[in-house]
Parts: sequence; C-alpha cells; structure tokens
Amino acid sequence: MNRKLRMAMIGGGKDAFIGAVHRLAMNMDGQVELVAGALSVNPDVAIESGKMLYLQPDRIYTDYKVMLETEAAKTEAEGRIDFVSIVTPNFVHFDPAMLALEKGFHVVIEKPITFTLEQAKQLQQKVQETGKRLLLCHTYTGYPMVKQARQLVASGALGKVRKIYVEYPQGWLSTLLEKTGQAQASWRTDPKRSGKAGAMGDIGTHAFNLAEYVSGLQTTHICADLNTLVEGRLLDDDGAVLMKMNNGASAVLMASQVAAGEENAVKIRVYGELGGLEWKQEDANTLLVKWLDKPAEIYRTGAGYNGSFAKHNTRIPAGHPEGYLEAFANLYRNFALTVQSDVDGVTPAAECLDFPSTTEGVRGMAFIENVVASSQSEQKWTVFEV
Amino acid sequence: MNRKLRMAMIGGGKDAFIGAVHRLAMNMDGQVELVAGALSVNPDVAIESGKMLYLQPDRIYTDYKVMLETEAAKTEAEGRIDFVSIVTPNFVHFDPAMLALEKGFHVVIEKPITFTLEQAKQLQQKVQETGKRLLLCHTYTGYPMVKQARQLVASGALGKVRKIYVEYPQGWLSTLLEKTGQAQASWRTDPKRSGKAGAMGDIGTHAFNLAEYVSGLQTTHICADLNTLVEGRLLDDDGAVLMKMNNGASAVLMASQVAAGEENAVKIRVYGELGGLEWKQEDANTLLVKWLDKPAEIYRTGAGYNGSFAKHNTRIPAGHPEGYLEAFANLYRNFALTVQSDVDGVTPAAECLDFPSTTEGVRGMAFIENVVASSQSEQKWTVFEV
Amino acid sequence: MNRKLRMAMIGGGKDAFIGAVHRLAMNMDGQVELVAGALSVNPDVAIESGKMLYLQPDRIYTDYKVMLETEAAKTEAEGRIDFVSIVTPNFVHFDPAMLALEKGFHVVIEKPITFTLEQAKQLQQKVQETGKRLLLCHTYTGYPMVKQARQLVASGALGKVRKIYVEYPQGWLSTLLEKTGQAQASWRTDPKRSGKAGAMGDIGTHAFNLAEYVSGLQTTHICADLNTLVEGRLLDDDGAVLMKMNNGASAVLMASQVAAGEENAVKIRVYGELGGLEWKQEDANTLLVKWLDKPAEIYRTGAGYNGSFAKHNTRIPAGHPEGYLEAFANLYRNFALTVQSDVDGVTPAAECLDFPSTTEGVRGMAFIENVVASSQSEQKWTVFEV
Amino acid sequence: MNRKLRMAMIGGGKDAFIGAVHRLAMNMDGQVELVAGALSVNPDVAIESGKMLYLQPDRIYTDYKVMLETEAAKTEAEGRIDFVSIVTPNFVHFDPAMLALEKGFHVVIEKPITFTLEQAKQLQQKVQETGKRLLLCHTYTGYPMVKQARQLVASGALGKVRKIYVEYPQGWLSTLLEKTGQAQASWRTDPKRSGKAGAMGDIGTHAFNLAEYVSGLQTTHICADLNTLVEGRLLDDDGAVLMKMNNGASAVLMASQVAAGEENAVKIRVYGELGGLEWKQEDANTLLVKWLDKPAEIYRTGAGYNGSFAKHNTRIPAGHPEGYLEAFANLYRNFALTVQSDVDGVTPAAECLDFPSTTEGVRGMAFIENVVASSQSEQKWTVFEV
Repeated sequence: MNRKLRMAMIGGGKDAFIGAVHRLAMNMDGQVELVAGALSVNPDVAIESGKMLYLQPDRIYTDYKVMLETEAAKTEAEGRIDFVSIVTPNFVHFDPAMLALEKGFHVVIEKPITFTLEQAKQLQQKVQETGKRLLLCHTYTGYPMVKQARQLVASGALGKVRKIYVEYPQGWLSTLLEKTGQAQASWRTDPKRSGKAGAMGDIGTHAFNLAEYVSGLQTTHICADLNTLVEGRLLDDDGAVLMKMNNGASAVLMASQVAAGEENAVKIRVYGELGGLEWKQEDANTLLVKWLDKPAEIYRTGAGYNGSFAKHNTRIPAGHPEGYLEAFANLYRNFALTVQSDVDGVTPAAECLDFPSTTEGVRGMAFIENVVASSQSEQKWTVFEV
Repeated sequence: MNRKLRMAMIGGGKDAFIGAVHRLAMNMDGQVELVAGALSVNPDVAIESGKMLYLQPDRIYTDYKVMLETEAAKTEAEGRIDFVSIVTPNFVHFDPAMLALEKGFHVVIEKPITFTLEQAKQLQQKVQETGKRLLLCHTYTGYPMVKQARQLVASGALGKVRKIYVEYPQGWLSTLLEKTGQAQASWRTDPKRSGKAGAMGDIGTHAFNLAEYVSGLQTTHICADLNTLVEGRLLDDDGAVLMKMNNGASAVLMASQVAAGEENAVKIRVYGELGGLEWKQEDANTLLVKWLDKPAEIYRTGAGYNGSFAKHNTRIPAGHPEGYLEAFANLYRNFALTVQSDVDGVTPAAECLDFPSTTEGVRGMAFIENVVASSQSEQKWTVFEV
Repeated sequence: MNRKLRMAMIGGGKDAFIGAVHRLAMNMDGQVELVAGALSVNPDVAIESGKMLYLQPDRIYTDYKVMLETEAAKTEAEGRIDFVSIVTPNFVHFDPAMLALEKGFHVVIEKPITFTLEQAKQLQQKVQETGKRLLLCHTYTGYPMVKQARQLVASGALGKVRKIYVEYPQGWLSTLLEKTGQAQASWRTDPKRSGKAGAMGDIGTHAFNLAEYVSGLQTTHICADLNTLVEGRLLDDDGAVLMKMNNGASAVLMASQVAAGEENAVKIRVYGELGGLEWKQEDANTLLVKWLDKPAEIYRTGAGYNGSFAKHNTRIPAGHPEGYLEAFANLYRNFALTVQSDVDGVTPAAECLDFPSTTEGVRGMAFIENVVASSQSEQKWTVFEV
Repeated sequence: MNRKLRMAMIGGGKDAFIGAVHRLAMNMDGQVELVAGALSVNPDVAIESGKMLYLQPDRIYTDYKVMLETEAAKTEAEGRIDFVSIVTPNFVHFDPAMLALEKGFHVVIEKPITFTLEQAKQLQQKVQETGKRLLLCHTYTGYPMVKQARQLVASGALGKVRKIYVEYPQGWLSTLLEKTGQAQASWRTDPKRSGKAGAMGDIGTHAFNLAEYVSGLQTTHICADLNTLVEGRLLDDDGAVLMKMNNGASAVLMASQVAAGEENAVKIRVYGELGGLEWKQEDANTLLVKWLDKPAEIYRTGAGYNGSFAKHNTRIPAGHPEGYLEAFANLYRNFALTVQSDVDGVTPAAECLDFPSTTEGVRGMAFIENVVASSQSEQKWTVFEV
C-alpha cells in the first residue's frame, strides 16, 4: 500500500481522555493519518476540536452519521477514509460501529465493545458478514512482555496451567468523585452510560481479557462478589471473582477502584506444573519467569531471546522503556498492517493478526453479564455463559 | 529477674525443620536457655539430638510426659524449667500443651494451635484457669513493619478500612513430594497428622492471622474455594477465600502451595478511605504507604519515625536487614519479657504483650473449620462461626 | 499556528537506528509532519527509504545540500519545510547544521552536537546570529521525573547539593562487535566517525548532561580514567570521572559499554544537606526522594502533586507507564511549541523552552575533550575548560 | 567438642552499638556462650552491663588485662575461656588482641583490625606465631549471596573480570552529629580514636574487602579523592577511589556518610566478559546475574541450585529472609567451627575457613593508608602498597 491509512474519529474531542490517547497511539508509527472527525455531540466542541487537530474544515463533522454517509460517498482519489475509531462512552459504541461496518469501513472501538452482550453478538455477526476488520482496544495485550508471556505458556514451557491470579487495583474512585462533576467518574459510574457494571466493566474486563489471553484458557465457572464500597455510588467499585478454567485450572480475579493510593496496577501471575510467570504494568518491560528448581529468569523487552510476537511489538532496543502508549500503538499498528495486507491481497502474519476483536468483545460482555448475575446469586458457582 | 529463662523443647530433634528455627530464634537475645528436651518420639534420635545441643545427659528425655513430671518436681535451685516449646506436628500439640499448663509451665506452641477447634477452646480455657502465658508462633506478626502497619491502621491515618488483600503463595508442593518420603511434605499433606486442611491450615492460617492483626478487624462471613491441584494429594494445596469483615470491609485471601517457583511470598495490602499500605515478606523491612493525593511513603525498619511497637521489635539500625529469624525471635522475646514481668510482679508493657496467643489460636482453628465447610457448601456466603 | 510544522530529515534511512526513533518521537503528538528527506548517502537507500515513509517523490532527495537549497527556494504555499532533523553519525553533524541555519531553517540534531568543541562553538554562534532554534537530543532530560528532580533541587528542598553519582552502564560492546559488521558498533568505535571518545562521547555525554541538568550545577575540575577493556578496540569503552562542581559539591560519573548484561541503565543520584533523590531509566516513572528523618517518598509520573515541568511533559494519567519514546517526544514537542510560539509572536513558556540546545552542546563537547585530555594526563585534577 | 565455646568480650557495654550486635550474632547458633567480660573502661558501666548479661559476678571484669590474666590462669574444668571478642573503638584493638593471643586465646576483632598498618602486620605475625585463629568482622562477606557471587566468579562463569563497581552510601553523618554528643559519631570522626580516615576507614574498608572478596582480585593502583563535605568535621566523610586490579580490570569504589537519606546501601557489581552480577544489602537474599544473550537470573538464598559456600551459610528455607545478623552470625559460626575442628584435631572444611582474618585486616589497613596518601597527592595513579 503506497499511502497511509485514513482514519476518522467518533468522540474524543478536547477534554475527553481516551480519544487523545488513541491519537497519540495511532500517530506514533506514521502508518495512519487522522483526516476526519465527529469529535463531540456538542457541535462547538466538535468544531473547535477539529481545528486543534488541523482537520480540513469540510471534514470536521458534528454528526457521526453524516460523517459516515459523506465519507462513504467519497472516492479513493477524494481521500475516502479507511476506518473509524470510536472512542465514545460505552452506550454510544454499538450504533456507530454497526453503521460504519455497513458503510464499508473497518472499525476500531474502545472497550467494552458494546452496552450489552446481545449487541456484542450482533456486532460480531456484522463483522463476519462484511468481512471488515475490527480492533477492540484491550491495551494490555499490546505489551511485548504480555505477548512473550502468552507465547511462553503456549509453548508448554510451564507445563499445564494450574493457577491464575489477575488483579487490577486502582484508587481514583476512593471518593465520590462523580458528584464533583469530574467527567470520567461521572459517566463511568452511571448505569445509563456505563452499563450493568462499574469497576468490573471498566477494568475487570481488562483483567479478564488478560487472563484468558496469557493463559490461552477459557473461563467455565465463576463465583463473583461485587461491592459498592463508597456510599452513594450507583455501581460496583470493587469486586473479586473466583473462576474455573476449561483445563481445570483455578483463577482469582480482583478489580477495585477504591484501592486508595493505587494508580493502575494491572498484574497477572500464571502458574503451571513446572514454573510460573508474573507481569505487572508498573514494570511493563519485565516478565518474571520462575522455575521449580532453577533461578528465576528476567525476560526484558527488546532482548534477542524473545519470541516473534514480542519482537514484532517492540520498537527500540532493550533498556529503553516502552510504555502504555507503545502498547496501545501496537494495537493500531497490527490492525493497520492487517488492513494493509487485506488491501494488498496478502495474508497477514500471525503476529499482525494478534489483536483483540469481536471474540474478545463478546467474551468481555459475557463477563460483565455473568459476574453481575453471579454476584446477585446465593449460589456459589455458576456456569459462565456466552 | 536475675537469670535467663529456662526452656524445654518437645519435638524438634535433628532433621526436624521448625524446631531448629525455634532454637535460632530463642537463642538470639540471650534471654532464654535451652536446658531440657524430649526431642523426638524415637529414643535414639531424642538422645543424639540432646547431645548435639549440649544438654546435660539427665535432662535429655525420651518421653515428654516423663520430662514434664520430672521437671515439675524440681526446685528453682535445681534449675526447674520455666516453659516448654512444643514444635511437634499438629496432632501432637494439644496433649503436651495441656499437661505442661497443668504442671505449672508456660507454653510456646507452633501453629495451628491444636488439631481441632474444640481442642483450641479447651486449651484457651486451661490457660485462663492456670494464669500461665501461651505464645502461638504466628511469625509474620513479629516483623517490625507488620507492627508498624497495624499501628498505622489503628491510628486512623488510612481512614476506615475498606479492602484487604492477603496472599501466601508457595510452590514447594507443585509435585507429589509426599510420595518421595520428604518428611515435611509427608505429614503436612496427611489428614491424620495435619488436620482437615492442607495449604489452608499450614499457610492460610498465617494469612488469616496477618489480615486480622494488621487491620484490627474480624471476619464475619466467608466464601471459600479449596482445590487439590496436584493429582493424588489428600488435602487441599490451593485455595481462595472471599471474606467480609466486621466493619463492612471486603477481603480476599489467597493461599497456594502449588504456585510453582514461588518461595514464601506472604503479602498483605490494606486500603482505607485515605490511603493504603503494602507489606511483603520478600522485602520485609519496607512498609509501603500509599496516599490518595501525595507521594507514597516508604517506611523502613529501624527508622526514627516509626511507632513504639516497631521500635520495640527492632534490634539494629536502619539499613541492616532484619529477617525471618528476627521476627521469630521477637515472638520469643516478647513472651520472655512478659513472663519475666510476671515473675517480677510488674505489668508487662503493651509492646511486650503484643504476641499471638489462644485468642489467635481459636480464631485460626475456626478459620480452618469454616473454610473447609464453606468450600464443601453450595451456598455462597456462610457465617464465620467460632 | 494553523498547521503542523514541516520537517525534513537528514540521515535516518532504513536500517539506521536513531532516525527511526526520531520519527516515532516526532510523530506522536501530531504537531509535526515529515515532508522531505535526504535519508542516506546511498541514493538507492535514500529513495527506497523515502518511499517507505510515504514521502512525495519530488521531496525524496539524495543530497542534503540539494534538499536545503530546494526547500529554501519554496514558498509557504509550496509547503516549505520549517526545520531539519540531523540524525547522521557524529562527523556529519556540523556541515548540514550550519547550512540549514544559513538557509533559514531551525535545526534538530543528535548528540554529540558536533565532531569537535571548536565546531560546537561555531554552531552556537551561528544559532545566535540567525535567531533560529536548535534542539540537541539529550533524551534523558525529557523524562517527566527528571524534570521533577531538577525542579525539586532548584526549589532548595534538598538543601545545598553535596554529592552526585551519575552512571550509564551498557553491555552491548562486551565483544568486538565492530568486527562483525554491525553498523552501530562500527561507526561508534571508529575515531574518524565518532570522534576522540568512544563510550564517553556516546553515553558519557548523556550522563554529564543529566548531572548538570538535574543538579543545576556546573563542573569545574575533573579527574578522568578512560579504559579500553575489549582488546583490539580503537576507542575507550569504559571510564569514570571524578568531578568537582561549582558550588563545592563532589561528583562521580561512570560510563561503560562493557558492563556485560546491562541494557541501558542510566541512573542519577543527587544528595543535598537535607535529603537525596534517585532516578533510573529502568523505572523511569518513579523519582525516589529520601529524607534525613522522615520516610522516603515516591514521586510518580502523572501525579497531581508534581511541579509544572513534570506535568507539562506528561501525556497520560499516573499508572500508565511513559517510556523512552515519550521522553524523546517531549524534546520534539517542546521544540515545536517554541517554534510555533515564535511564529505566533508569543513568548514561549519556560516549560516549553526547557529543551537542550547549543549551551548543552558546547558543554558536552568540552566534556569529551576534557576527559580525553585528563585521562592522558599524569596530573590528578585538571580544570574543566570550555 | 562436647561443649559450647566460651567467650569473653572486651568493650560492648550497654549503650555501645556493635557489641550488642556481636552478642546477637554469637548467640544465634547456640555454639558459643558469653561467660566473661571487660565491657567498659568505666567500671560502673562494666559491672552493670555484666549483670544485665547474666555474667557470674566473678567474671565481670573492669580491666581487660586483669581479665586475660585471670582467665588464662583457669583450667578447662574451671571454665577457662576459649576466645575474646574485641569490640572497642579502633584505637583499642591492637593491645588487647596482642595480649589475648599471647595468653593463648583465639581472637574476634571488629574492623578495621588495628589503628595503623604497622600494627596490623605485627598482629598478623603474632597470629602466625601462636597458631591461634583470628576473625575480622567484615560482615558483608558473611551473606550467602555474597558467597555465591564469589563462587560464581571463581567458577569462571562470567569470564575474565573487567569492571567492578562497589559502593557504600550512608547518610547518617549529613549533619555535624559529633557535636551533639552522639557516641558513635563522636569517636568515628575523631582522628585520635578512629585513625587516619573517617568514612573510608569505617565503611570504605568494607567496600574494599567486598570487592576483593567477590572478584578474587587484588588492587594494584589507586587514585583516591577524599572529601570532608560537612563543615567542621575532622575526617573525610565522603570519597571515591578509582582502582586497577591485578588482572587488568578497572574498579570504582564509592563511600559516603553524607548521602542524605541513605541507610546502609552497600552494593557491588562485577562484570566479566560473559556476564555480570549485582548484589546489594537492601535485597540481601537476591543475587542478580546478568548475561550477554540470555535472560538475567535471580539467585536466591536457600535455593537448591546454590553452591556449597552459600548453602553452608544458610539456616532456613528459601523465602524466609536472612538478614544482617545472620550474616554476622555466619562469621562467628565459621570461626567457631574452625576452632572446634582445631580442638578436635580435624581439618576444617573450606566453607568453615572462609572467614576474614589477618590477611584481610592488613589489606584493609593498607587501603586506609594508601587512599589517604593518594588523596593528598597531585599524582593521579599511585601503587597500592602493603
């Protein structure tokens, strides 16, 4: 392909959090250019934001439907967009994603993929029908050392997996922040905009995705305990889930947004018969691999001994820390490489195809629905239904 | 008191693990001397072990009952012992402890305190009747930074406690070690000698004690999941317990002996409204205190800013690591100081009295019985009954 | 300014290391676009590289002089470039930089700024004459926590600085890699292309810059020991420098490229009368601040308590690690914001102006010349001459 | 040997620092008993201290010469002491050590071994003449992971050693503490009691010993820079030494007592052709081993893969931290095992004999004299003379 991919963004105007992150990530590798946007439901914000991003005036839209119609009518020579990136709150994921696919565009979408499990399934079917690519932004699986962890487990080096601990403690909702007008807290704790679950939807889904991704296993049974530990909050802000995996392994998932003082301490540990591994975002370029009877090993981003997946997702030599934005950029980069391969009629490499999509989206929505149901149940174990 | 305290040991002959640890701990401060022992049920081992420890021949016993009788008949001038230390496997705790108390001796006992909850209650009553002192060796609460953590929580600095994570992963039972003749693995996985629970009795009780000690809270409801992840094992080797505390806080307790590659990674995190704290044995001289809106702080053993409990349990200046044996020695030291105060007719300081005893023993046995029952139940939450 | 800045690159064709890093960094914030390039002295490589970067064919040059002439002749409407980025080996820094300035372009330049101290001074004078901006890429000073460290020292919180330790151990030159044809090793160990110093020029200069930047002090006397520890190498691959600073403080600088197994472990510690600080690139988002008589504090990228310089150089919330590329992007971002302010006739904020330039370049070249001379001298202390 | 060794202590009365540490260390293994003492030059303190340690009244001495005479006149049946432990300030090491050896006692002595190099040589000769054992308390070489480091280097696994970094930063003398009456600061900064060097004598000698012990190399040339950074102090409180080793390796030694906020952060790094190792006291049970082309390894105290020297100096299983007192106790234990072997007419095992003695003492005193001379010299490199 002899040009950059052209992207339009839905949501993500000034003051939005995750939209700006998407742009930083998408810019990095110089493979994608932002050419259009419906950046806010507020027209003034949409226009001002578009200008700040140097969009051409005629491609600053105030309505995403109009944008998708207009862009779909353009030709390649007119610079028709290739894909949209949807960075709106959860309840505005499904409609634009469906429309974009129908209009022939690939889709990037923030997690959770939709507002309900049913929508997720519909979206999955639409993707299959249209043959378009969909990237779901589970950022943590974009880290090179998470890739290395998955490849190490898959190689059998640790033996059969027996135990998984995955945790995601944050502290930023330790106060009733949503009553102060803080935008992020406001919609994320509002069932109408966030969905059935609070912390479990926002960050529990990341932990769940990480556990299944690294272990290569699927959850079959759960026992969930969701809590609202800050008085006056409308959704859960803390919880734990005991899980059984499809190979007989046992897992514990913990997520909290009231772990006061914690930043964003995602961490996973997986133990097999022969050894265990540990990765935490706070030290993202290290993968600790522990063995029954020899010294633990420190795998590091950028090292020559890493596998092909870690290497493919690394930009700079060992010892130059790669961070969250690089992990995020890996999602965009692999998505872009896959779309380019499609255009060029080439089969994308396995390393490029390794980005989260509708399968992960459907399982994530199932996670939300199952944990909410389990938490309300008096029964200890319930089947994880998808 | 113008002499060292005199101790006799029951169990702990050569090749035993924990008996040797007790002696290292007890020796350190030069306040206690080992003068007698019934060190093994095997007479040859008992005698050989006694010689190795330079005991006088007439105080090397081959039967603990004979020892307790004989020592009880001695006068102070004849060097009568002050207390016994019981370091036998779990099923041989209760009888010698009861007899020792009846004979007028103070008692040190390895955890778990007895084989059943009922025994623990009887022992507690006997201690109350006799007025003797009993030390239960929950070592982890002997660390200075664990003391500091407790004092910090009690001070209210973190606000009301909301969430506790406590974990104790080990990897040494990742194989069926008990079939190889390894002595430690053999009795600890045998229901007849270890009790109803395996990992939960051996190390889960430590985690439970640590959580209640640091938080100052008590468990009211639990939801337990015990697993036997190594085929052929007779007791649980892994488990997790969701817990509700008596102030409304939520807790997660994890213990595993099949976390391959882990050594002895006890760790506790407690989060309140205003901040959280984190302590892990692998970095035992550090207490991490995290705050909502200011830099996290690193409390260190030996520092001048620590509270009276941490300071009382520290021997050397900051920067000279104190380890497991020093924590263990703190138990003995506080027990010994308390016994000496009793002898001298002085009220022991609060810092000296701060050692685990029958209350912790009864709660620990209740923990074992409750988690086993909960794990077998289909009901999610069960009341924690003592 | 209502458009992105337009950049041309000199050097940095495919297979080059640092040019690709510059592009990743420059892309990130969407403020700059690469529109032209003379990417290699090899015309085929230059052309192929330009295509891979989606440059328009007429702006892919095979000679940087032609490029500078041609671009200088363009009008704003024709998309004339605003600045050049020079990412060639050391011996090709001076000429293109001088020419670019003469042609009216701002300049970004890799360190060390030139091949000799004399050139550095000439370049500094040319910048002053032309009034153009020059960015020298001392990346490590782009890290938010390095900014915070500097601001903390400058605030006087640590008291008068007494001692500095700065170190930069790498291991990649532990073998005679330059004999294998490895491009990076080849020119960096070649006096004709690298200059008088090897490790001291390549990484010692970074350490030197970091020490003076964080402490706010200047070196007055040095005692250097340069070593060539791998037989057959033409330049130093290891060294240490004892230094005296202009406030009486003492410093030790260590740099090695034969510290086998080390990646890129830049670290600085600064101690004042009241406390000390520690920053290391391997844990780049943490600044450890230690105090004489209270708990050490952990400053973290993204936290609300940070100063204006750290905050200005942070993109995402605390707990999402920012890495080397973000630090690098901060250099470009501050340079771009400054150039844009110039265009807009606005005084740039102090936080924007805080990027390394010719002053740092001249001092860096002086460092190289002084340490080489000192190392060859029998005299212990020599004056640091600029 | 069928009894504990009998020890007398010279110095170490109440309020003394290092004497109490010696007793904790010596007690731990139950191989040695303290039976006599001349614990202070102040008779009242000597007597009170003896009582606190439960010494028999007739073995509480107020003059060490009287003690040595009296004890030497005792028979084995009367409980004659086997050795003395000298824990007085530096200027009172030589005389009691010489007298003790002359009276037929083995000697334990705090470092630095004597007040001058000349005394150290005399003491070495006396030890050789008498055939008695002398333990010099360089504690850091008692750590299991330091033993492992030495064994690893000696095995050739890292290839030829090229570079050593050893550092010992403390912060406790950041203020003019000696003017406040603090006892430790008072004598350690007083040339009449401490010797020619301050920080370099007190802690630089430890760093020097550690470097030579781990690397197995000897220093041949030095270039020293000693500083007095706190105004009004009489001796150096900071310094660095560039060193050349007898195999051509280069080393940097740093010691400071004004690194405000540091506790006791001894650390050593040794790099060979194939890899490097790192040990620091703050994480004393970890030895990090880094390799050119494979993951770094984490060696841990207590693990089965360690060598015979580490194993011999370990008391408890992996994961139970062993600290400073255990390292110190290893010195006493190896000394005691060696003396017992001598008594029993058995050749001590290499692992037992591995404790610092007069060779290390002489080299340590030479270090002090050489660095002071070098620091005062205008010449860069001086030969390290012993």
